[in-house]
Amino acid sequence: MRYYSQKINVLVTQLSMLPGIGEKTAERLAYHIIKLPSERIYALAEAITDAGEHVTYCRECFATSDEMLCPICKSKARDHSVIMVVENDEDMAQIERSGAYDGVYHVLQGAINPMGGIGPQDIRLKELMLRLRGDVKELILATSSGLEGESTATYITRLVGPTGIHITRLASGVPVGSDLSMVDSETLKKAIKGRCDV
Amino acid sequence: MRYYSQKINVLVTQLSMLPGIGEKTAERLAYHIIKLPSERIYALAEAITDAGEHVTYCRECFATSDEMLCPICKSKARDHSVIMVVENDEDMAQIERSGAYDGVYHVLQGAINPMGGIGPQDIRLKELMLRLRGDVKELILATSSGLEGESTATYITRLVGPTGIHITRLASGVPVGSDLSMVDSETLKKAIKGRCDV
Repeated sequence: MRYYSQKINVLVTQLSMLPGIGEKTAERLAYHIIKLPSERIYALAEAITDAGEHVTYCRECFATSDEMLCPICKSKARDHSVIMVVENDEDMAQIERSGAYDGVYHVLQGAINPMGGIGPQDIRLKELMLRLRGDVKELILATSSGLEGESTATYITRLVGPTGIHITRLASGVPVGSDLSMVDSETLKKAIKGRCDV
Repeated sequence: MRYYSQKINVLVTQLSMLPGIGEKTAERLAYHIIKLPSERIYALAEAITDAGEHVTYCRECFATSDEMLCPICKSKARDHSVIMVVENDEDMAQIERSGAYDGVYHVLQGAINPMGGIGPQDIRLKELMLRLRGDVKELILATSSGLEGESTATYITRLVGPTGIHITRLASGVPVGSDLSMVDSETLKKAIKGRCDV
């Protein structure tokens, strides 16, 4: 036993299983949490179970969503003939924050990574191909600029190429090797504006 | 609305209210949490409410504890005539990790900070004075080496001085201005061994 309260032990263990939370951080969080007023504690616990239970995936773009169809796929203000392919929800949220895009998305929920045992069948690629049967004018590949993102983009380009759909890739401005969700809005604006053919 | 799921919004808001968790980290944690298996989600939420509901303070030393008396105050293997005064549970946990101390503790649950409106009556000082009526040979002041910790140590020294109890302070080895809970075990061992009279 590391702490002289079994309940603190359990809480520290649970918190330190989260990504990027070491034992020291978990300890600080735990001692902070137990001193919160009980309504704050319940609000935190409820937010966790509520999101865990009820958040689902949009049946169209596979973004996490409270409903069968996410607000973007539902919106008439968005251009449904342009689809931007992103790896995950964080990347989509970052593009939205830039305010520079009015099309729709396709969230792969992953990237091809043969070393990690993630193949094309493990991400939402089949679903993307089904969407491309509709009236799609442009497919913007916004997978990250690292090895996995580039592999995924290359794979999609080969797959979609024969359909004749116009495929583009985010332009320079995204630093090579960096995580898309960490890029600032100005850089993303430039990258969206300057996107080029593949 | 920042995210396209209201439940994610709520979860990100809740998480980013925790100390040291910015919005970006909260976002990453939220998207990680919703993808966990449901038993992991419930275990996390339950650890939070369980610790928040049931953790109380030891009636002797005021460490957070599952029971009225914490395992250290209960233990016959510990020297109850030596009391080490610490600011909080994290500091006590860090001293325990060093393995260099076999006395008992008194957890002030704070430090005197006039600028922050925390006076002697806001920490567990009265309770410390009550304990000193018993058979106490030595009082080790292990408040942190920053301004608040030093003020608290000075205040206690003045208060306890007249009782004739031997008062010591952790020796050099603790870097000035640093947080006690961040100090490594070896440095703490030296500081405990070399403690000096005040």
